[in-house]
Amino acid sequence: MRLAEIAERTGGELIGDGDFDVRDVAEYSDAAPDTLSYAESASQRKKPTSAGALIVPPEVDPGGPGIRSEIPKLVFARAIALLRPQKQPEPGVHPGAHVEAGARIGEGVSVGPAASIGPDAEIGDGCWIGAGARIGAGVKLGPGCVIHPNSVLYTGVEVGARVVIHAGAVIGSDGFGYVPDGKGGVEKFPQTGTVVIEDDVEIGSNTTIDRGAIGETRIKRGAKIDNLVQIAHNVEIGDGSLLASQVGISGSVRVGRGVIMGGQVGISDHVEIGDGATLAAMTGVTKSLEGGKVYMDAPADEASRVRRRLVVYSRLPELARRVSALEGKQEESGRC
Amino acid sequence: MRLAEIAERTGGELIGDGDFDVRDVAEYSDAAPDTLSYAESASQRKKPTSAGALIVPPEVDPGGPGIRSEIPKLVFARAIALLRPQKQPEPGVHPGAHVEAGARIGEGVSVGPAASIGPDAEIGDGCWIGAGARIGAGVKLGPGCVIHPNSVLYTGVEVGARVVIHAGAVIGSDGFGYVPDGKGGVEKFPQTGTVVIEDDVEIGSNTTIDRGAIGETRIKRGAKIDNLVQIAHNVEIGDGSLLASQVGISGSVRVGRGVIMGGQVGISDHVEIGDGATLAAMTGVTKSLEGGKVYMDAPADEASRVRRRLVVYSRLPELARRVSALEGKQEESGRC
Amino acid sequence: MRLAEIAERTGGELIGDGDFDVRDVAEYSDAAPDTLSYAESASQRKKPTSAGALIVPPEVDPGGPGIRSEIPKLVFARAIALLRPQKQPEPGVHPGAHVEAGARIGEGVSVGPAASIGPDAEIGDGCWIGAGARIGAGVKLGPGCVIHPNSVLYTGVEVGARVVIHAGAVIGSDGFGYVPDGKGGVEKFPQTGTVVIEDDVEIGSNTTIDRGAIGETRIKRGAKIDNLVQIAHNVEIGDGSLLASQVGISGSVRVGRGVIMGGQVGISDHVEIGDGATLAAMTGVTKSLEGGKVYMDAPADEASRVRRRLVVYSRLPELARRVSALEGKQEESGRC
Repeated sequence: MRLAEIAERTGGELIGDGDFDVRDVAEYSDAAPDTLSYAESASQRKKPTSAGALIVPPEVDPGGPGIRSEIPKLVFARAIALLRPQKQPEPGVHPGAHVEAGARIGEGVSVGPAASIGPDAEIGDGCWIGAGARIGAGVKLGPGCVIHPNSVLYTGVEVGARVVIHAGAVIGSDGFGYVPDGKGGVEKFPQTGTVVIEDDVEIGSNTTIDRGAIGETRIKRGAKIDNLVQIAHNVEIGDGSLLASQVGISGSVRVGRGVIMGGQVGISDHVEIGDGATLAAMTGVTKSLEGGKVYMDAPADEASRVRRRLVVYSRLPELARRVSALEGKQEESGRC
Repeated sequence: MRLAEIAERTGGELIGDGDFDVRDVAEYSDAAPDTLSYAESASQRKKPTSAGALIVPPEVDPGGPGIRSEIPKLVFARAIALLRPQKQPEPGVHPGAHVEAGARIGEGVSVGPAASIGPDAEIGDGCWIGAGARIGAGVKLGPGCVIHPNSVLYTGVEVGARVVIHAGAVIGSDGFGYVPDGKGGVEKFPQTGTVVIEDDVEIGSNTTIDRGAIGETRIKRGAKIDNLVQIAHNVEIGDGSLLASQVGISGSVRVGRGVIMGGQVGISDHVEIGDGATLAAMTGVTKSLEGGKVYMDAPADEASRVRRRLVVYSRLPELARRVSALEGKQEESGRC
Repeated sequence: MRLAEIAERTGGELIGDGDFDVRDVAEYSDAAPDTLSYAESASQRKKPTSAGALIVPPEVDPGGPGIRSEIPKLVFARAIALLRPQKQPEPGVHPGAHVEAGARIGEGVSVGPAASIGPDAEIGDGCWIGAGARIGAGVKLGPGCVIHPNSVLYTGVEVGARVVIHAGAVIGSDGFGYVPDGKGGVEKFPQTGTVVIEDDVEIGSNTTIDRGAIGETRIKRGAKIDNLVQIAHNVEIGDGSLLASQVGISGSVRVGRGVIMGGQVGISDHVEIGDGATLAAMTGVTKSLEGGKVYMDAPADEASRVRRRLVVYSRLPELARRVSALEGKQEESGRC
C-alpha cells in the first residue's frame, strides 16, 4: 500500500515520498526495509531500525519517508488494521450449526459449525458466531458482534453493538449465592437476573461474568476486560474501564468510568471504585476507593504511601537490629 | 401468586392479607408495589421501600402484608424460586447431540445440541446436559444433575445426585505431575486416578478440577465452588465448604467441613485446613491450619494477629522515623 | 505384569522374585498386596506398607521383591504408564465432526464428535482431536498431539510434536492491547501475530495464551503449563520451564529455561526472568530477576531476604511496643 494512502486513511500527515510501497508493519527493532514502524520519542529514534518508513511525533525526524502524528502508536494501530486486515468469515449458517425455532438471524451473519443458537435469540446484522459458541434462549446480540468459538452466553443475556467475546468466555452463569438454612447447611439463593453488555465492549478468553441475583450485572460502553477475569453478580463496570487478566470482582461492586486495573487485582463485595482510579497489579481492595488516584498493595492504599512503606518494609531486619542496638545502649547507660 | 401460598410453601408465617397478589420479587430499595422483598433487621426496615409485601424477622413489623421468619433471606430465596421458576428444557436427546454406543440415558433426560456422551457413560434420571457439554467415556452422573453448555467431564469421572456444573468447567483433566528424569528434563507422572463429585455440589464456570494421580480427587457433599477455581490432583474438599472465585488449591490438600474461602486464596500442596476455618480473600496458606478460626494474609496467620500487625504495617515509615529520632537523641545524650 | 518385565521396561534393576505378578500401582500408605509402590528414602521405608513390591533407592531394602533405581519415582511413573495404559481413541474422523475444505489430516488421526477443523489446517500423524475442539484455519499440529475436548486454537497457531492441550484451553486469542485515541477513549491495537508451541509442551485446562500483537508468543520445547494460567501477547517461555496454576504473565515477558513458578505468581510486562529461577507461589514480579535464585513475596525479593524479613514482619506489634518502651524510658531519663 502506498504510504500516502496509509497517511490519509490513518489520520496522519505524510512526510516525504508518498509512493513508498509499504508491504507490512513491524516492530521498530525488528523491521525489514519494506515495512512501516513507529517511534514514540526522539530517544527511541536514536536507536537503529531498518524500517523503510516511520510514524513519528511532530518533533522527530523520520529520516526518510514517514507519517507525522501527535499519537504515533494510534496511527500505527490503524496502519496495522489496513495492512493486515482480519479475514472475515463468509456470511451464512454452517450446515453443522444448530439454530432453534424462533431465533432471528440478521443480514450478513456467519454462524460456525457446531454452534448453537437458542429459541427466540436475536442475532444482529453482521455478527460472527464462532464454531461451538452457545447462544442461549432469548439472548440478544446487537450488530457487528464477534462471538469467538466455544464461548457461552446463558439464557437472556443482552449484548450491544460491536461487542467482541473471546473463546471460552462464559456470560450469565449463576452468581455464587447461598443462604444458611438454619440447620448447618445452605440453600441456593436463585440467580434469576441477567447480564447486560453495552456497545464496544471486549471480553477476554475464559473470562466469567455472572448474572445478577435479581437485577443485572452490567458492563458499560467501551469497557475492555482481559482473559480469565471473574465478574460476580450485580457488578457494574463503568464506561471505558480496563481490567487486566485474572482480576476478580466480588458481588455488587460498582466500578466507575475509566478505571484501570492491573492483573490479579481482587475486590471485595459491595465496594465502590471511583472514576479514573488506577489499581496496580495484585491490589486487594476491601473498602471503597476515591477516584482519580493510584492504589497498590493488599489491603489497598495510595501508591505514594505504599512506596514509602515498602522502603521500610524491605529493610525490616535492619530496623529490628537498630531497635535492638538502642535497647542495648540504653541498658548500658542504665547500668552506668 | 397469593402471599398466603408463598408463606405456606416457603415455611414462613403469614402476616396480614393472605390474598395480596405478589407479581415478582425485588430488592428492598428497588421494589415495585406489586412485589415481595425482605428486610433483615429493624434498622433496614427504617429505610423506605415500595415493596407491597415484606419478609421480616420476628421483631420487625412489615407495615402491611408480609411473612415472618427467623431467616428472612432464606424465605426470600424460596420465594424467588416460586415466583421466577427456572425454565426446564424439554426432555429428549437433540438430533444434533452425539450419544455413543453403550451410553445409558435415564428417564426425562435432556441432551442439548452438539453435546457428546461417551461410550458406557451413565446419565441419571432428569439430568440436563447442555449444548456442547462433553461427557467422557464411562462417566456416571446421578439423578437431577445440570451440566451446563461446553463443560467437560473427562473419562471416568463420577458425579452424585443434583450436582450443578456451570459452563466451561473442566472436571478430570490431568494433574500437574512431572518427575525429573535425571538428565535435566522431566517425564510425565501419569495421571490415572479419577474425580468424585458427591451429591448437591455446585461448580462454577471455567473452574478446573484435576483427576487424582493414582487415587482420587473428591468434592464432598454440598460443597459449593465458584468460578475459575483450580483444584489440583488428590485434593479433598469437605462437606459444605464454600470456595469463592479464583481460589487455587494445590495437590493433596485436605480441606475440612464447612470451610469458607474468600476469592483468590492459594493453598500449598499437602496442607490440611481444619473444619470450619475461614480464610479471607487472598490468604496464602503454606502450612496446615487449625479449624474454627479466621485467617488472613500471606503467609496465613490468625486474623486477630494480622489486624494488629496491619496497624503497625500501615505506619511503617512513622515507626522508622521514631527509631531514627531515638538514635539521634541517644547520640546527643552520648555526646553530653 | 511380571515384576521382571516392569524392571526391564522402566530402566530399573530387579531385586528378588521377577515372577511376582503386579496387578496395579498404588500409593505407599494405601497399597494392596498385589500392587507395586515406591519409597523415596530409608525413612519412608520404615513406615508400614502392604505393597507386594517396592521401587527403592540403592541404599534401601525393599523387604521383598522390588526394583532398584537412583530415581524411584521416575521408575514408578514409568510403571504406572505400563500398568494403567491410557486408552487410545480409535483413528478416524467422527461423522459428527466438521472438517473444512483444504484441511489435511494425517495418518491414524482421531477426530471426535462436534470437533471442527478449519480450512487449510494441517493435523499431524497420530493426533487426537477431542470432541468439540476448535482447530482454526491454517493451524498446524505436529505429530502425536492430544487436543482435549472443547479447547480452542485460533487461526494460524503453530504447534509442534507431542503437544498436549487440555480441555477448554484457548491458544491464540487477542492480546489485551489498546491505544488512547486522544479523545478520552481507546482504539484497539490489532493483534495480528501468532502463537508457536514447540515440541513436548503440555498446557493445562482453561489456560489462555494470547497471540503476539505483531510478532509471536512462543512456548519453548518441553515447557509445562498448569490450569488457568494466563500468558499474554509476545511472551516467551523458555525450554522446560514449569508454571503452576493461575500464574499470570504480562505482555512481552521473557522467561528463561528451567524456570519454576508456584501458583498465582504474577509478572509485570517487559520483565525478564533468568534461567533456572524459582518463584514461590504468589510472588509478584515488577522488575527483571537474575536466574538461578529463589524468589518470594510481592514485590519479589530473594527468598533468604524475605524469610528474614517475615520473622520481623510477623512480630511487628512487638517491635512497635519496643520502640514505645524506648521512647518512654528516654523521656524518663530526659526528665531526670
